[in-house]
Amino acid sequence: MANKNFSSLPGFRDFKPRDCAIRNYLFDAWRSVATRYGFIEYEVPMLEPTELYMKKTGDELPTQLFRFEDQGKRDVTLRPEITASLARIVSDVQRDYPKPMKWFEIGQCFRYEKPQAGRTREFIQFNADIIGEAGAGADAELIALSIDTMLELGFTGADFVIRASDRASWLQFCEGRGITDAGAFLQIIDKWERDPSEARVKKLAEYDLTEEEVTAFIENTDNASDEFKQIEADLTARGLGEYIELDLTIVRGLAYYTGTVFEIFDKAKSMRAIAGGGRYDDLIKVISNGSADLPCTGFAMGDVVIRNFIEETPHALMQLEAWLQRQTPCEVYVIVADEDQRLGALKTVAELRNKGTRVGYTMSKLKMQKQFQKAEQSGARYAIVVGNEYPELTLRNLETRGEEKIHPNSDMLAIMQTRLSGDDGPIIC
Amino acid sequence: MANKNFSSLPGFRDFKPRDCAIRNYLFDAWRSVATRYGFIEYEVPMLEPTELYMKKTGDELPTQLFRFEDQGKRDVTLRPEITASLARIVSDVQRDYPKPMKWFEIGQCFRYEKPQAGRTREFIQFNADIIGEAGAGADAELIALSIDTMLELGFTGADFVIRASDRASWLQFCEGRGITDAGAFLQIIDKWERDPSEARVKKLAEYDLTEEEVTAFIENTDNASDEFKQIEADLTARGLGEYIELDLTIVRGLAYYTGTVFEIFDKAKSMRAIAGGGRYDDLIKVISNGSADLPCTGFAMGDVVIRNFIEETPHALMQLEAWLQRQTPCEVYVIVADEDQRLGALKTVAELRNKGTRVGYTMSKLKMQKQFQKAEQSGARYAIVVGNEYPELTLRNLETRGEEKIHPNSDMLAIMQTRLSGDDGPIIC
Repeated sequence: MANKNFSSLPGFRDFKPRDCAIRNYLFDAWRSVATRYGFIEYEVPMLEPTELYMKKTGDELPTQLFRFEDQGKRDVTLRPEITASLARIVSDVQRDYPKPMKWFEIGQCFRYEKPQAGRTREFIQFNADIIGEAGAGADAELIALSIDTMLELGFTGADFVIRASDRASWLQFCEGRGITDAGAFLQIIDKWERDPSEARVKKLAEYDLTEEEVTAFIENTDNASDEFKQIEADLTARGLGEYIELDLTIVRGLAYYTGTVFEIFDKAKSMRAIAGGGRYDDLIKVISNGSADLPCTGFAMGDVVIRNFIEETPHALMQLEAWLQRQTPCEVYVIVADEDQRLGALKTVAELRNKGTRVGYTMSKLKMQKQFQKAEQSGARYAIVVGNEYPELTLRNLETRGEEKIHPNSDMLAIMQTRLSGDDGPIIC
Repeated sequence: MANKNFSSLPGFRDFKPRDCAIRNYLFDAWRSVATRYGFIEYEVPMLEPTELYMKKTGDELPTQLFRFEDQGKRDVTLRPEITASLARIVSDVQRDYPKPMKWFEIGQCFRYEKPQAGRTREFIQFNADIIGEAGAGADAELIALSIDTMLELGFTGADFVIRASDRASWLQFCEGRGITDAGAFLQIIDKWERDPSEARVKKLAEYDLTEEEVTAFIENTDNASDEFKQIEADLTARGLGEYIELDLTIVRGLAYYTGTVFEIFDKAKSMRAIAGGGRYDDLIKVISNGSADLPCTGFAMGDVVIRNFIEETPHALMQLEAWLQRQTPCEVYVIVADEDQRLGALKTVAELRNKGTRVGYTMSKLKMQKQFQKAEQSGARYAIVVGNEYPELTLRNLETRGEEKIHPNSDMLAIMQTRLSGDDGPIIC
């Protein structure tokens, strides 16, 4: 059946119902945690002027963009990330909102990358940002949110850890050693765990530094900034202290971070970052050409890596599977036993749905046995049989196969509600 | 403050928090109705091979596409609609699902149109389709879903009506009059209400028909197809008969419809279609090059027109506003009365959030009065004051200004839950 017309583009995903349900599970978890934290949701366009990203980023991103000229000859780009658009909209509307603004977003982003495990060309990001609060209290709130997101998804302290740092520690280090191009130096630290020792030694030599000297700095917890210590105390007070550790090798690659930075790591594969964030106090000023200036701290998590991580983690996967099992298409299936009672069956379908019940039925004539088969495929727990005794109905529990008659003058809707909300209580046969 | 960098592209929208909440209100309504009807959700890529749309459509659409060449020299297009992708995915996976498949989707689409009232270049569509069911029962189910979507949004029979028809009526008409190019003839009917009389007369003359003759056919309800009559009886049994009427001038422009077609009309502006749908039994065969062949019927509604319609309809708007008022960022705000009790306050914040409450607090030192101001801005109904009496807490109702003390050995979380779920019961001062 292979047919090239059947394929989506490389790196793009079809969300079949199970995939879409898993996506919705992530959406629910993200929204649930963000709203408990008092964040409000926003959204920005999928397509933006390319100039917006040029302004924000260094020289790495532009080759990975879905960039093109539209019919109006505009240089446009499918959004590779949300923060630049957030900075644009915040610059524009911030006067209308009390500070700090706690805003979150969930939506697709696009990067022209080589498709591989954990990397797609279209992915979904959860973004949470606190705008207009310079203190470490905001970074702590954001890290707490990232931890609670992991806990919400069923992960435990055995699965993940937040490694956090503060660029301030390194700026102080650079200042003490007369290093003037701190930005370039931070790139060495960013690759610290990935570079082989020889590469590190060679790079450090240019700064008259030895590997031992820098390792000693990294390993000395006294080099944590005051902000880090405040974040640690804050998280401990919330009962989340166990999930964070100092790691001065975390500086995050992007040039725009200015202070606290953090990443969530998979403990089993310690090189794998699940998500991350940090403080970026200068971006709004840059994007707004100086017309607005607000300190920011933000966090982002993508759907691809976190879904893989859930599927590799038995207890997180079990929680997901239990959730999926509750998402059956139908709770109740109405069986049309006699075709001439179809209109009565439709009345019953409508009444049940009006009460909020998920109801299926067979839309054209079909043998009873086939209808029961469809009822079971739909995941319904109960079948209601409408036949020539109508308005009397037969209620069948599809798990126990128990049956009861519902008499015309009893309240079918109330009975159904009780059955569905109860713990599968016994059916009177 | 005008600055070209601040703008999104023409026809693209920023969803500030209020706009995003209204979007979510639509999403909730669409999902709620679709799941009650036993539909399951799917999603398809934002970007597809252009060939997919070429295959589906006639010659109208291609000029309105966001079409470009990606870095891999592929001819790609930002999806202008969902049905072509649905046909692709269904062709591919239909063997894994019992029929009929009832699937729905919610997501962005893109068309390069001239931005104007009700028309944007990026819009959100709700799509519901029934695949693998040829009978009129499926069309009735879909029209019922479209009616219940309108009712869910607070509209009444005074606001909207479904005008439905069946292309079969016209195919019979054409056959009876020896018209062989029924497709071209249907274009005349499609423009019936928009064309001036002279234009109609001129076009009909080519078929040796008079305006009176065709008008008589349109006005004769005997020309309703058997399918239409079945749909009407079906909807009437559900209590939805009042919302549908026969209108033979509804044929819908697109070439791919094959049977029942319908549109939701605004009764106040009767020329304005709010949403629509119809049967398209050939599309899957076309898209799959014949490897799959399933009858389909589908419905789509966009977010722009329906939002405008809500905002123009007082009772629907009132329902929206009431919903928006319940979406405050916070339910409870924790006030740090003494900065040295901040960690105790954070503990309280965390405990409340763990119970599912939306909680805010001030992330850095601030005067009490300013904190209460922030509490009120956040929409919180209660403030909890943590100070030097900690772990004793003061609970203040922000509406009544009533206060009560919560003693250390009482269950603060239970008290808070009761307060928030109750009808603002009196607070003991």
